[in-house]
Amino acid sequence: AILAAIDAALGGGPLAGRHVLVTSGPTHEPIDPVRYIANRSSGAQGTAIAAALRDLGARVTFVTGTAEVPPPQGVTVVRVETAAQMLAAVQAALPAEAAVMAAAVADWRVANAAGQKMKKDGTGQPPALEFAENPDILATVSQGAQRPRLVVGFAAETTDVLAHATAKRARKGCDWIVANDVSPATGIMGGSENAVTLISAEGAESWPRMAKDAVARRLAARIAEALA
Amino acid sequence: AILAAIDAALGGGPLAGRHVLVTSGPTHEPIDPVRYIANRSSGAQGTAIAAALRDLGARVTFVTGTAEVPPPQGVTVVRVETAAQMLAAVQAALPAEAAVMAAAVADWRVANAAGQKMKKDGTGQPPALEFAENPDILATVSQGAQRPRLVVGFAAETTDVLAHATAKRARKGCDWIVANDVSPATGIMGGSENAVTLISAEGAESWPRMAKDAVARRLAARIAEALA
Repeated sequence: AILAAIDAALGGGPLAGRHVLVTSGPTHEPIDPVRYIANRSSGAQGTAIAAALRDLGARVTFVTGTAEVPPPQGVTVVRVETAAQMLAAVQAALPAEAAVMAAAVADWRVANAAGQKMKKDGTGQPPALEFAENPDILATVSQGAQRPRLVVGFAAETTDVLAHATAKRARKGCDWIVANDVSPATGIMGGSENAVTLISAEGAESWPRMAKDAVARRLAARIAEALA
Repeated sequence: AILAAIDAALGGGPLAGRHVLVTSGPTHEPIDPVRYIANRSSGAQGTAIAAALRDLGARVTFVTGTAEVPPPQGVTVVRVETAAQMLAAVQAALPAEAAVMAAAVADWRVANAAGQKMKKDGTGQPPALEFAENPDILATVSQGAQRPRLVVGFAAETTDVLAHATAKRARKGCDWIVANDVSPATGIMGGSENAVTLISAEGAESWPRMAKDAVARRLAARIAEALA
């Protein structure tokens, strides 16, 4: 990594001069000023990917929700909270030669979010929440006019991982899906390791369980090959 | 703070030998393995209070949700996620001579939380969430058989702060309420300063806006007086 960073600093990395967009972390969807709905995501895998792409010389725009780990040095950081904000930041960051969409984006937002703190009304019943479907950032980028040459999505599943992820790749129109099993028993969510399967037009390739940093370096190397 | 810490280490603080319970941080209520509902809370104020009580010599049990700031050194840390877990940890930590309930506890949990990740079903409608009211930790402690001599609650409000907080004190049965206005415009939520009003049987006492550490030291000193 140190050699790669020096190489990148000298402009010699395989991704030198390439702009790559990475999304990371959870989105938070407000219910009222003090409550929100969130996806579990430490941001560790997306942060490691951004760092690995930077180490290969890429110019990285890093669009991140409120993550537990700090963003990498040497990348352009755009902080967002909601899925709608993330979509706007992604669109503002395009064009890019590749997009790696590692963020855990909420499928739904609260349509009737309150401007003031919701109070118990004494009935024991919560305020009724109405939900609206969020924009699909991966599909929007994959099918948009400014589509990067390579679009990589993520699928965090707890059952039928390969089937869900393969269907997701076709449905969204992205090139690759990085799929993993985030069932609590795996310890992957919030942990330092990951076990992923890379799904492309050529099929599914399962990588052994390894550190999230190692997953990131391997994925970044594959991205560099694809853009070469 | 250094002199107080030395004093405490030598067993000379005004709270020497006293057990004080502090709750802090948000609770997270699962929707499914990858989604949850949360309260906004950095845990900064509760953490500062625990540290200030420790500096006065107290033996502190610190029950905390997933906070943005690390717990203080020199206290017994009990980590929890949900309101139900927080209540159990609080009851296990009693008896105590004082309890400072600074955590932002969710009023409701998802009654039909799923063991597997909920999927979009193609209708554009989210899965129906059913809510159940969470146990009221402040009221349970205030009205329980092992009630501490001094119970301090918090009220984070966005409107009618004093009226809501005064009503809360009576309804819960606690001794003091530390009330503050967490409207986004105040910058208090997630910030380093706080502006609180201490509500007791004697009335309401508004403190000037100051660092959260300073609020904590002032509150700890008042607790020491009350237990003297």
